[in-house]
Amino acid sequence: MKVFISGFGTVGQGVFELLLLKMDMLNELGGVIVTGIMDSKSYSVDNEKGICGLCALGGKKLKGKCGNTDRNGMEGKDILDKADYDVLIECTPTNIDDGGEGLKNIRHALEKGKDVITVNKGPLALRFKELSDLAEKNGCIMRYEGSVGGAMPIINLCKEALIGQKIKSIKGIFNGTCNFILSRMDSGMPFQQALKEAQQLGYAEADSTYDIKGIDSACKVTILANSIFGRDVSIKDVSIIGIDTITEEAISLAAENDMVIRLIGEVSESRLSVSPRLVPKGHPLSLSGTLNMALVETDCAGPITVSGRGAGRQETASAILSDLITIIKERK
Amino acid sequence: MKVFISGFGTVGQGVFELLLLKMDMLNELGGVIVTGIMDSKSYSVDNEKGICGLCALGGKKLKGKCGNTDRNGMEGKDILDKADYDVLIECTPTNIDDGGEGLKNIRHALEKGKDVITVNKGPLALRFKELSDLAEKNGCIMRYEGSVGGAMPIINLCKEALIGQKIKSIKGIFNGTCNFILSRMDSGMPFQQALKEAQQLGYAEADSTYDIKGIDSACKVTILANSIFGRDVSIKDVSIIGIDTITEEAISLAAENDMVIRLIGEVSESRLSVSPRLVPKGHPLSLSGTLNMALVETDCAGPITVSGRGAGRQETASAILSDLITIIKERK
Repeated sequence: MKVFISGFGTVGQGVFELLLLKMDMLNELGGVIVTGIMDSKSYSVDNEKGICGLCALGGKKLKGKCGNTDRNGMEGKDILDKADYDVLIECTPTNIDDGGEGLKNIRHALEKGKDVITVNKGPLALRFKELSDLAEKNGCIMRYEGSVGGAMPIINLCKEALIGQKIKSIKGIFNGTCNFILSRMDSGMPFQQALKEAQQLGYAEADSTYDIKGIDSACKVTILANSIFGRDVSIKDVSIIGIDTITEEAISLAAENDMVIRLIGEVSESRLSVSPRLVPKGHPLSLSGTLNMALVETDCAGPITVSGRGAGRQETASAILSDLITIIKERK
Repeated sequence: MKVFISGFGTVGQGVFELLLLKMDMLNELGGVIVTGIMDSKSYSVDNEKGICGLCALGGKKLKGKCGNTDRNGMEGKDILDKADYDVLIECTPTNIDDGGEGLKNIRHALEKGKDVITVNKGPLALRFKELSDLAEKNGCIMRYEGSVGGAMPIINLCKEALIGQKIKSIKGIFNGTCNFILSRMDSGMPFQQALKEAQQLGYAEADSTYDIKGIDSACKVTILANSIFGRDVSIKDVSIIGIDTITEEAISLAAENDMVIRLIGEVSESRLSVSPRLVPKGHPLSLSGTLNMALVETDCAGPITVSGRGAGRQETASAILSDLITIIKERK
């Protein structure tokens, strides 16, 4: 199986590392070769031997470029066309204005009949139906487990392990940064100080607007609405309230009533929202810390919960790996 | 797809009900016909039209017999041979002395090249390797999601959603009865009174020895050891301590240290145990009530938790349904 990795930030690098780490297992399945990689500045293609993982990772670390050739403004699709690949692994940064290069790359790969794995939330939150229709039309598999909840296997759980169930609703904590901040506020810390701590610990970006305004969570509920509930919605359809207006007073008032405040994403046939909610202490969604958690209500199996690390280099890469192995098995 | 349901207690009845409830969905997949059913006293076989679900369920309720023919000591395998079926759904009661009729039924079906779904823990806890080797030799699929944790999809989670991960260990609460009793003891209730309450509420059998001695949990860790870790063990290899010797003093002492006592099953490459353990309050395994819960440690994805209802008519049947749909899809 030949793969192309587009985007070589934390996740793209994590994928290449994991492919090296799991080489023996992948060889048993027939082997995986990376024939192409690109980041915003550079690319490498090697359709014969495949790209040396250590060179790509080393180049990124030392020179800030994963590839041996400068892009010089070259478009992603033209680089993709140079490579012989079966699966595009799309890890460019999320852009929710127009889907950015990630959307273009995915479209191009699907048009060429390639399978796609993406953790880029932008294209899925903006153009889910277009992309899944395109995949179906061209006989392509499109998988995106890592786009919601990182290592938490919520999509495969709902679509595969719970097959046969009608999923009535999914409520969840889909942003570890917000949950960390709210957990710190539970102990009396003001919002700004908790945010600063999250940034110092590396849980939050310097610009954490997407997280604290609830936009990142909204991308995820959009993806769940489309993929699990078969709806046709975009992030513009989500009712979104972030955590930046939550006061210490609100937190104390909640605590007096044995409750906490958590940023909950909810999706069902009719609902699509992200908002801070009161959750009783001891309830699964009262979880503290940086984990992601989802509570899936089913018609016959009752409530099922799942939790896992919502972000992280190896954690997100591991979700990509599970998608890749599933594709390898389906294509056998 | 033609199925035979052996065992027509709570779970067997729940399966037939669920097949009726989900008929539209199953018809879209090609349709499911029940060509045979049996309980300890009676059986019915109809290879042409299939068995009327309402008659079987009504007969069981009114006369205590699911079938229209008395068995008169007839062996399960001879009844199975009368039926034309693709999948045996084995729901006879668990017998961990010699596997009971369930083991004989499963063996016989696999020898005849039939696929098998079982929620009967006995055959799997005693003869896992023999049965899975037999299935492989004869090109049969054997699935058993409902045998561990009822509706909690732990097996499919580990084998499918987390594919590519090395599972380092699984620790879990695998018996809702014990967890209910321990949760009641947390509030100061003595063991005998908590047990009585569990029985009155229908969470515990009149004879709850298997539950409180940890044997039911031990069956489940045995199945996980064989299926997830590829070990070749039987229930005899599990180190088992039940909850019947836990005193109110032990519970209070734990509480003073901000801990609770939970009956934890643990399985890894080297460990296979069921025992009461101290768990810090707030830890996923400190869960109260009747749910089952598992904490899966992976090499790259970190810790993943899953919880769900560990028992119940429709809940266990829903696990069988997911196995059945997976088989239908694989056999297409």
